[in-house]
Amino acid sequence: MGPHPAVAAIRLAVRRVLHDILTELKTTAGVPAATAADRVPDREAGLPASPLVLVACSGGADSMALASALAFEAPRLGIRAGGVTVDHGLQNGSDLRAEEVVLRLRELGLDPVEATAVTVGRGGGPEAAARDARYAALDAAAARHGAAAVLLGHTRDDQAETVLLGLARGSGIRSLSGMAAVSGAGGRYRRPFLQVDRQTARKACMVQSLPVWDDPHNADPAYTRSRLRHEGLPALEKALGKGVVEALARTAQLSRDDADALDTWARQAEAGVRDARGMLECAKLYALPPAVRRRILRRAAIEAGAPAGALFARHIEEIDRLITGWRGQGDINLPGKVVARRQGGRLVIRQG
Amino acid sequence: MGPHPAVAAIRLAVRRVLHDILTELKTTAGVPAATAADRVPDREAGLPASPLVLVACSGGADSMALASALAFEAPRLGIRAGGVTVDHGLQNGSDLRAEEVVLRLRELGLDPVEATAVTVGRGGGPEAAARDARYAALDAAAARHGAAAVLLGHTRDDQAETVLLGLARGSGIRSLSGMAAVSGAGGRYRRPFLQVDRQTARKACMVQSLPVWDDPHNADPAYTRSRLRHEGLPALEKALGKGVVEALARTAQLSRDDADALDTWARQAEAGVRDARGMLECAKLYALPPAVRRRILRRAAIEAGAPAGALFARHIEEIDRLITGWRGQGDINLPGKVVARRQGGRLVIRQG
Repeated sequence: MGPHPAVAAIRLAVRRVLHDILTELKTTAGVPAATAADRVPDREAGLPASPLVLVACSGGADSMALASALAFEAPRLGIRAGGVTVDHGLQNGSDLRAEEVVLRLRELGLDPVEATAVTVGRGGGPEAAARDARYAALDAAAARHGAAAVLLGHTRDDQAETVLLGLARGSGIRSLSGMAAVSGAGGRYRRPFLQVDRQTARKACMVQSLPVWDDPHNADPAYTRSRLRHEGLPALEKALGKGVVEALARTAQLSRDDADALDTWARQAEAGVRDARGMLECAKLYALPPAVRRRILRRAAIEAGAPAGALFARHIEEIDRLITGWRGQGDINLPGKVVARRQGGRLVIRQG
Repeated sequence: MGPHPAVAAIRLAVRRVLHDILTELKTTAGVPAATAADRVPDREAGLPASPLVLVACSGGADSMALASALAFEAPRLGIRAGGVTVDHGLQNGSDLRAEEVVLRLRELGLDPVEATAVTVGRGGGPEAAARDARYAALDAAAARHGAAAVLLGHTRDDQAETVLLGLARGSGIRSLSGMAAVSGAGGRYRRPFLQVDRQTARKACMVQSLPVWDDPHNADPAYTRSRLRHEGLPALEKALGKGVVEALARTAQLSRDDADALDTWARQAEAGVRDARGMLECAKLYALPPAVRRRILRRAAIEAGAPAGALFARHIEEIDRLITGWRGQGDINLPGKVVARRQGGRLVIRQG
């Protein structure tokens, strides 16, 4: 008898990602990927003795399920499995909680395992500040242990929530593209569970008798994501049907590919719309599709010093009207003290 | 003292659209748009005596507000304003209701005004069937009266709902692009209120003492859109904040532009990935960005006879794996008895 379907599902998801990691390591080591993918990893292929993959684990159901699947799959592929838990120091007893997670990860057979304490700042709101601190700590842990990758337990449900949060910004398809399966410097972070739902992860913990910890933050209505999870998304499912989470996750993937393609186009088109002195020519910009033109304008504003996070769709629309609806408008003020103006058929975007 | 802000807002929205219509009529009549836009309409410019613009009116707040704004603005621009109301025959007394709407439109000074009765079929569910019948009747009315355009009362709230309905399909950014401001053959349909919210339209009716009719269908939880309006969207607003409707409407516009640009790219790229016999070459498809490649595959499947509405993202993904994950897969069955297979480095998509 094989494992429970939930356990089989989480293991398969992790196995695929570990396989990708090995293939990439071999490619980097000079072995062609096409042959490497068909072979069992071995030391002769020029790999480091045995690559290390870490799991980032909060002790919650998603990351505990991930840790258990990593503990099972890694040894079968000649990979060492380790774990890190981040103590955000935001709740009383969070240090004890972190120690408990360390024990559980050791019980699963992970090694090395460590808890790392961080100080959460205040920049960009409580959720963003906690995230920044967490990733800095994970980066440091990965570097310290020479890890080939760090696995994150984000599920399809998390992805759906992220898409809705992006939708609420109304800033276009890049913000609808959710979390990437591979991200960070050198593709360090991997999210094997983006196609796995939260219920499957929880079920996998249950049938494996893994104790899980429910972070009270996840149910705290002070957090946007928590309100979305417990009220917004269920109401949307009630109105639109059960497939909403899957549809949102698929939208993320499609939007990401579309946004990547359009960014590529904009990068390529940019050289062609600059004059000999490197100035943006309005007539040439006008001839581009609006989607491409607006991306070029956005890049130009950021290059001039406008902070990307403060630059909204309405700012870009206003610059765009210098090209598509020119009637002698004055200077357009953008975030970061950047000013856009039209001058002699050229678009001038610069600080001051 | 000027009109109430809500009345000013709906009039401005209609005035802009009427202006666009006049500019286009003059361009068609051989007068350059750039000069036509600066001039008051006149007969010497080669225009038909006085162009007619119809409003499609259910008697609800949105379309009554639209009718009132059209009645006010049209004469000032030398345009004749008329109205059509469609009797869907789905409720008892709907014929009397239609007669009542006709009277109200006449009271506003519209001429011609008519009620047109339709028989709603069953194709594609009750909402789609009613929509198909309605547009067929509006097309016929526009042709009968020689109307230059038909105005529709869809508001920003309707647009937000449409985006969420598209999101639930999970089929990519085209389905997120909502309703177009200009649509139909020759740009016949115009939606002046896509940036106007429902509350403004209702307020404009109230302050103008226009009686409005609340279609019980709009509150019937049997309809997906109605559930979305009364439960889904309010819950989403509660979780994400009041700006959600605006963010969704902006997402529609940005997605539409992005989808248009990518469709253009795919059309242009398609010629380059076919061999001398017109067959799709897998190696060349592989080199394209996934977003462009998938659009070419989708077009090829539709061209081979697959019905566009039955072709989902997962179908395209499966065809795509013949190119990106080739391991000797068998035939892929698509809707409309279309089969896709890889053969000698070529992609063969055809019926049978």
